[in-house]
This record gives sequence, C-alpha cells and structure tokens, in this order.
Amino acid sequence: MDEYVSFIDQLERANTFVIASHYNPDGDGIGSCVALGMALERMDKEIVLYNRDPIPVNLRFLPGIDRFVSELPADGQFDMALMVDCAQRKRISDEFAAYQGFRSYSCIDHHLLEDAEADYFLLDSEAASTGEVVFRLMQRAGVKVDADVAQLIYTTLVVDTGFFKYSTTDARVLTLAAELVELGADPWVVAKNIEESFPLERFKLLASSLATLETDLDGRYASMDVTLKMLEETGASVDHSEEFAVYPRSIAGVEVSALFREVEKNLVKVSLRSKDAVDVSALARKMGGGGHTRAAGVRIRGSLKDAKLKILDAVKDALPEEE
Amino acid sequence: MDEYVSFIDQLERANTFVIASHYNPDGDGIGSCVALGMALERMDKEIVLYNRDPIPVNLRFLPGIDRFVSELPADGQFDMALMVDCAQRKRISDEFAAYQGFRSYSCIDHHLLEDAEADYFLLDSEAASTGEVVFRLMQRAGVKVDADVAQLIYTTLVVDTGFFKYSTTDARVLTLAAELVELGADPWVVAKNIEESFPLERFKLLASSLATLETDLDGRYASMDVTLKMLEETGASVDHSEEFAVYPRSIAGVEVSALFREVEKNLVKVSLRSKDAVDVSALARKMGGGGHTRAAGVRIRGSLKDAKLKILDAVKDALPEEE
Repeated sequence: MDEYVSFIDQLERANTFVIASHYNPDGDGIGSCVALGMALERMDKEIVLYNRDPIPVNLRFLPGIDRFVSELPADGQFDMALMVDCAQRKRISDEFAAYQGFRSYSCIDHHLLEDAEADYFLLDSEAASTGEVVFRLMQRAGVKVDADVAQLIYTTLVVDTGFFKYSTTDARVLTLAAELVELGADPWVVAKNIEESFPLERFKLLASSLATLETDLDGRYASMDVTLKMLEETGASVDHSEEFAVYPRSIAGVEVSALFREVEKNLVKVSLRSKDAVDVSALARKMGGGGHTRAAGVRIRGSLKDAKLKILDAVKDALPEEE
Repeated sequence: MDEYVSFIDQLERANTFVIASHYNPDGDGIGSCVALGMALERMDKEIVLYNRDPIPVNLRFLPGIDRFVSELPADGQFDMALMVDCAQRKRISDEFAAYQGFRSYSCIDHHLLEDAEADYFLLDSEAASTGEVVFRLMQRAGVKVDADVAQLIYTTLVVDTGFFKYSTTDARVLTLAAELVELGADPWVVAKNIEESFPLERFKLLASSLATLETDLDGRYASMDVTLKMLEETGASVDHSEEFAVYPRSIAGVEVSALFREVEKNLVKVSLRSKDAVDVSALARKMGGGGHTRAAGVRIRGSLKDAKLKILDAVKDALPEEE
C-alpha cells in the first residue's frame, strides 16, 4: 500500500477536519488548503479552513477563499487537524498549537520533514508544490477535479516554481500545468491577480529599496535593503517586499544575493538566493536559518549594518574560487 | 496541400539563404532565426544569419548565437531571404532592404500580416511565438529537434508568453513546453539568463523610473517615465527599460498603463498595456502606432509632458464607464 493510499484511508476514517496552513500564508499553502477542503467536502466530510493571518490581497481572487476563519471554534471537537505545507504546530499559530479539540494530526507537504508534529503524513518530495500533492491525492481518491480546484492547484504550481522559472520546473510540471488548464485553470487570470494586483506603495518601496542595491566580492555578490524608515516613508508594509529577493540575484555575474529587511528594531530578516555555485541553505543553517539550495533565509538579531557584515563574511567563505 | 507543406516545398527548391529578423532583436526573433538555420543546415542548405544590431546580453547564452553577422556579404547571391518574426524589409535594416543579392523573399511569423513584402509566407496565427512556427515546420519537414533547437524554441515561447503569464498561454502551449523540455530544453538555464543577467545600471534606472510611477482616472490608469536625464544619471541605456511596462500595469485596480520613454529630445516612445477593459492596439493605431489588444505602442513627437497629456486624454475616452 503506497503512501497516498494509506493516507486516503486515514482521511476516510475521520469525519470532521480543520485544514490549516502556516502563518504569513502564501499561494501554495492557501491554494492547497482550499483545494483539499473542496476534495473532502466531495467525500462528505465537514471542514473548517483556518489561517491566523489575513489572506494576501493577490490571493483573494481564488475560488472558495472566503471560507477561511482566523479563530478556531471555542470548545470545538475535530477528528483531524490537517496541517498543509507546514509540519510544526506553532508555525500555524499559538492558538492552533494549544488547541485541545483535535483527536489526531496529519501533515501534507512536498518537502521532506525532520521534526513533523503529526500522526499521519503525506510527503511527496517529487511534487513541485503542496498543491500538486493534493492533486495527486484527489486523483488517487477518485475525487473529481473541477475548474475551481484546477485554478487553485495551478496557482500553487506557479507560486512554487516562480512561473515555471525555478530549477524544479521539468517536463512533468509543465505537463501537469497543461492538464490543469484543460480542466479549467486560466493562466492569465492567475498571473494577472498574483503578479498585477499590488498597491502603489509596494512600488514606492521597491524604488527606495532598489536605490540601495549594490554588488561586492568582484560582482559575485549583491545585496539590497528594506529599512523601517523606508516602510514609514512609503506607507508600505514589510509584506510588500516579499518578492524583492529576486532583484539582487538578477544582476549579471552575481552568484549569491541577499535581501536584508528590518522587520523590527534590531531584528533583520535575510533572504538568500543563489544561481549555481553556492548552497545557501547550508549557509543559512550555520546561523540558525534554513531553506533550499537556491533560496534560504535566516533572522539575525542586531543592527542592519552588523547583519550585512555577517552575511558578507559568510558569503565570502562560501563562494568557490573563481575559475 | 497545407501552408506548411507548400512552404517546405519552397525551402527545398532553394540552396542558399540569408535568415534575418527585425532590428532591436528580441528572444523570439533571434531564437527562431538560429533554430531555422540549424534546421536548414540539416537539410544540407547554406545559411547566413543576419541581424543589424548586437545580440542583447541576456540572449547570448543561446546555442549557435555566435553565427550572427551584422553586415551582408558584398556582392553575395542568395536563393532566398528568410524574414523571421517580421514582414517589412526596412524593419530588418536599410542595408537589407537595399540589398541586390536575393532571388526571392519569404516570411515566417505568428501574426497575420497586412503588408508583408515577400513572395512566400508561413503565417500561423495559432502559434504562441514565431519559434513555435519553426518547431512545427521542422516536425512537418521531418528534421530532428535536438537539445539545442529545443532550448532555442523554448526561449521563444517564454519570451512571447511572458513566462506563461499572458493570455496566449493555453494547454497547447504548456504541452509544447513540456515536449521541448523532454527534448532537452532547460527551463532554469533559460530563466536564469533571460531574467537574471541584467547590468546593475538597469536596476538604478528602474529605481529612478519607479519613483515617477503615478495613478490617475480613479486609479484605473497608471504611468511611469524614463527620461534622458535618468539615462545619463544612471549610465543605463534605453534598452534596459525594455520590460518596465509591466510595472504600472501591476497596480491593483489599474486597467490601462503607459510607460513613457524619451528616446531622444522631443521623441517619446509610449508602451501601452491593458488588463481587460481596453483594446490598446486600437488606441495606439489612432495615433499612428500599433500592436496587440493588451500590449501596443506608439511614438509621439514633442515633449514628454505633451505626450503624457495626449495619452491621458485618449485613455480617458477609451475606458468604459465604471460599473
């Protein structure tokens, strides 16, 4: 019995579910939750969709998005808590972690997880997004994928592959995308909403941040800052800089890039990216962070200036000798 | 006999070719030229690849790209001039238009053309890029598509669909993309080069230009400027702003956007974009420009200020009443 079949078996045994993803939700977490909810309702289950934080504006076009609640029902009792695109209870919320009303926990993800806090797992590391795992689950469970579900899954794919740019994009992913479009997903509607629904303030912040863009280490490293002062001056929020990490990496010759964001006084969030030569997840892990080979992150306590020096030193050590 | 078969028949009758695309070359024109050249060489033809202008830096990773020459051979004689992604001889170059050494002209494109200056045509308006037309041509001619050709055609696809974002992206396009990856195209290498090989100056220019971003007409119209002064101050060239038009359109609520670029004193190039409500090609045609429903352009003689007022008035007239 493969992993999908045994997981479906566990879902069949339960009747009431809370489906939840991590705080600061993204398109993969949110899209996967709603798609999974639609699937379970078609299997005659009762579901609650939960997220601690508001749904980002550019995801509000998704079908079924108004079903999310931001508080769990007082004194509720549920057969299963389904943790989606996330494996630690605290990463969903303190409320979720402390909640007494779950009889069991399960976890669906496309990453291999070391310390998942769940009783049952569906982890498919070949999938390009958690949404793809949900899609494969629905196929195996014989649940119909309609146009709404196709749109949701398609959204998880483009978010997690950067519109088919990242190295996870292979023939299988593109074939799946084609299949989802056949089933009713609309690439233009998804792109228009995901990428073209930003507030003006976001671009004012981008203008200020780009003005700090600089290269070092013979042009092989680039960095860019988002400061509390910029946020104040432009009226933007730090969330609006979520995709800025792509800019420093986009410079010719740059191998490693870092976006430094002051999330509060003396707390700097660093988003690391690499092209080929450096495993930035290894670099991030050394400082208590984590991530993937080409995209990782770490939080550093201290001033922006100190954080920048610390990362510069670490990148210098990690860069291979020039050919 | 369908269009492909009769066009292949014309190619078979010729032995020597100049393959050329429009000046200010883009990924579709360039990628299609090289792929077509490789195909013809496999059919034992002699080819010259010609473009008036230097190959943009972000396309120099393409296989076979060093084959381009920027001058036609003096006193050359060729059986056929193959105009790719372009139908007017002058759009290739004055040298090309005046050249006496072509026995015939043919044209390959994915747009329907009104005034094409050629003897033979292969126009497939269902194709997402001219590169797709070349791919279909190779399939019909029984010419093997190897990894190099697959990479070239894949590049034309992502350039002309904006990485599968534009409304031309359908299941057929995604299936073709999957097929090309199976044949050896590498999505990450293409994306890394196309989107992440810009000079630092390009981002300095973007920072200056974004600072001019503003909305009008109740937030339904946005505009952004690139001035000669900005080019001078940042050391960037106007080509570096080629993709800036996406920024003003990316604001929530904006229906029509315009990027104004001073290409010389008193000559302003306007790039118009729309989401759904307005056909910007109709708007551009009224002023002597042209393009597609959602992406069009026009050149206006006069000051930047006058050009901006003129476009603002035209957009005001073109926007439908608010619901």
